[in-house]
Amino acid sequence: MATKAFGATGVDQPLEPLSIERRQPGPTDVQIAIAYCGVCHSDLHQVRAEWEGTLYPCVPGHEIVGHVTAVGDAVSRHKVGDTVGVGCLVDSCQHCGSCAEGLEQYCENGFTLTYNSATPDAPGHTLGGYAEDIVVDEKFVLKITHADDQLAAVAPLLCAGITTYSPLKHWGAGPGKKVGIVGIGGLGHMGVKIAHALGAHVVAFTTSESKRQDALDLGADEVVVSRNAAEMGEHAGSFDMILDTVAASHQLDDYVTLLKRDGTLVLVGAPDQPHPSPNVMNMILGRRQIAGSLIGGLPETQEMLDFCAEHGITASIEMIAIQDIEAAYDRMQRSDVKYRFVIDTKSLAA
Amino acid sequence: MATKAFGATGVDQPLEPLSIERRQPGPTDVQIAIAYCGVCHSDLHQVRAEWEGTLYPCVPGHEIVGHVTAVGDAVSRHKVGDTVGVGCLVDSCQHCGSCAEGLEQYCENGFTLTYNSATPDAPGHTLGGYAEDIVVDEKFVLKITHADDQLAAVAPLLCAGITTYSPLKHWGAGPGKKVGIVGIGGLGHMGVKIAHALGAHVVAFTTSESKRQDALDLGADEVVVSRNAAEMGEHAGSFDMILDTVAASHQLDDYVTLLKRDGTLVLVGAPDQPHPSPNVMNMILGRRQIAGSLIGGLPETQEMLDFCAEHGITASIEMIAIQDIEAAYDRMQRSDVKYRFVIDTKSLAA
Repeated sequence: MATKAFGATGVDQPLEPLSIERRQPGPTDVQIAIAYCGVCHSDLHQVRAEWEGTLYPCVPGHEIVGHVTAVGDAVSRHKVGDTVGVGCLVDSCQHCGSCAEGLEQYCENGFTLTYNSATPDAPGHTLGGYAEDIVVDEKFVLKITHADDQLAAVAPLLCAGITTYSPLKHWGAGPGKKVGIVGIGGLGHMGVKIAHALGAHVVAFTTSESKRQDALDLGADEVVVSRNAAEMGEHAGSFDMILDTVAASHQLDDYVTLLKRDGTLVLVGAPDQPHPSPNVMNMILGRRQIAGSLIGGLPETQEMLDFCAEHGITASIEMIAIQDIEAAYDRMQRSDVKYRFVIDTKSLAA
Repeated sequence: MATKAFGATGVDQPLEPLSIERRQPGPTDVQIAIAYCGVCHSDLHQVRAEWEGTLYPCVPGHEIVGHVTAVGDAVSRHKVGDTVGVGCLVDSCQHCGSCAEGLEQYCENGFTLTYNSATPDAPGHTLGGYAEDIVVDEKFVLKITHADDQLAAVAPLLCAGITTYSPLKHWGAGPGKKVGIVGIGGLGHMGVKIAHALGAHVVAFTTSESKRQDALDLGADEVVVSRNAAEMGEHAGSFDMILDTVAASHQLDDYVTLLKRDGTLVLVGAPDQPHPSPNVMNMILGRRQIAGSLIGGLPETQEMLDFCAEHGITASIEMIAIQDIEAAYDRMQRSDVKYRFVIDTKSLAA
């Protein structure tokens, strides 16, 4: 089944129109006409081979929303016409302890990412959502209950939304808790919105004075400009958790110091260059923790989508045509987007 | 009240006999004739000014056991003749959230250490347990129910015991849990004994093949020589928690890799030089955590002493006379002790 897509055929090649093959839907498969696909930093890292192991042709995209156009005979969860989403995962072993608990993102035998993972389908690796259609096992297809006119802004929930929702829930963000969100970009702006909706007292950390009002508008109760040591100092020892969405190498101690006893600094971005090594005494004095967190499992992703629909939460987006993807990548690298680019896949027909 | 003690009068001065003053017991004070005092690495770091801020004269010692010789009018918990202990803390603010929870080690207004902390008593800073007597507020005095002939070997429980017991309990070491103990020294040997008694499956990590049998004798179910990559690799992704007692700078990733999903690497030693910065992706893939932990509060220290008495646990010690302290420090620096030196304070009379 030929599908129009956009991707790169090699290192240093720009993204260009490609015709790719999707498998015919098997018994448990759902075929989806993609309406919108969000643009994640991972897309850029992978397609430009900034990360190791990029397989070409590379079609990025793992913030996918659309409508069901066909289902296999054994599919029970979805039907033709349903509004659905696909995130970072399209398969996992389904039998390890993590999969059994619905934590497929921690599959102990290796999950299958939506792009750049091995698959029996042509060309031998998965191809993502910068495309008109995709075929995915029903277990990895999420139901979307947001209004249809919100659909483009729902797409980023499939990665940026769940990447922030999962640790916020796991470490107990909610009423009576003081929660910090470091970095007000694609991930961080979702973190602020979700932590606010969960009922936490939300403090946004940004390096940029210019984002102060933006962060308040997103739902932050307070904003701290992290370059301002005095402002940082006022919050020493006061946070239950801090969700750090900044992947660039930075000083973690600045945030560990702001944690209460038993507080946790959660990292969701992996830096190219290591962070300066965190001060151990700073962790010992206060039994503080530094943790990592990876997206979320399928049950929690559905929970997040339902929570966001109920609370009227979507991403703040800038819509683009697929032909503008390289310019969007360049702007994203300069943090020049509020806060997520989303591809209108109608542009693939052009 | 003059007391015979042993300490240093300045940087680069050896420890020598000193006559120090203890306060007369106030209404809530307990006066203790010290029978034994354990020798902790901290003693050496502080008295030799390897840590900042050493106040002279410096009398180290915070693993104190002895008998009550006098009590203040308002003392209700202890009476003359009782066998008691004093650990790392002799005071705290008693009104912050942590103190209210019995977590005085995380006192938000600053605790008073058994030595080298500010006090109204002469000479203006606390003087520790390398002495014949000490006077301590009853709240910071622990009851000891071990047999009298075990008393010397009980002393190290007051620091090495609680430093390992507290994180083992906090992070749930017990039946069905696989627990690693890194470093088989003063702290680590207690960690092995306590984790074993808590019912966990205990794996001891040592750099030294020669400690393999020793670690098994202490109660480890398995021993891994950490320099052996193949041996380490067999345990990948299998630990619920790993308690790392090694203060020297080392690669934490080696142990983070061995944690299960949601596992925690707990650091109880602060290195002079930073550890290599831990790999963030290694934490993200598995929602793994790195945490710090500091000794324990008074209620938990009592719980640990009672637990150890019930399970027949004491430290493995080598008794010394106070006159041999400098030689003991030198041997301790070479890890040439199994596993803790304890001073017989009768030697102070010599």
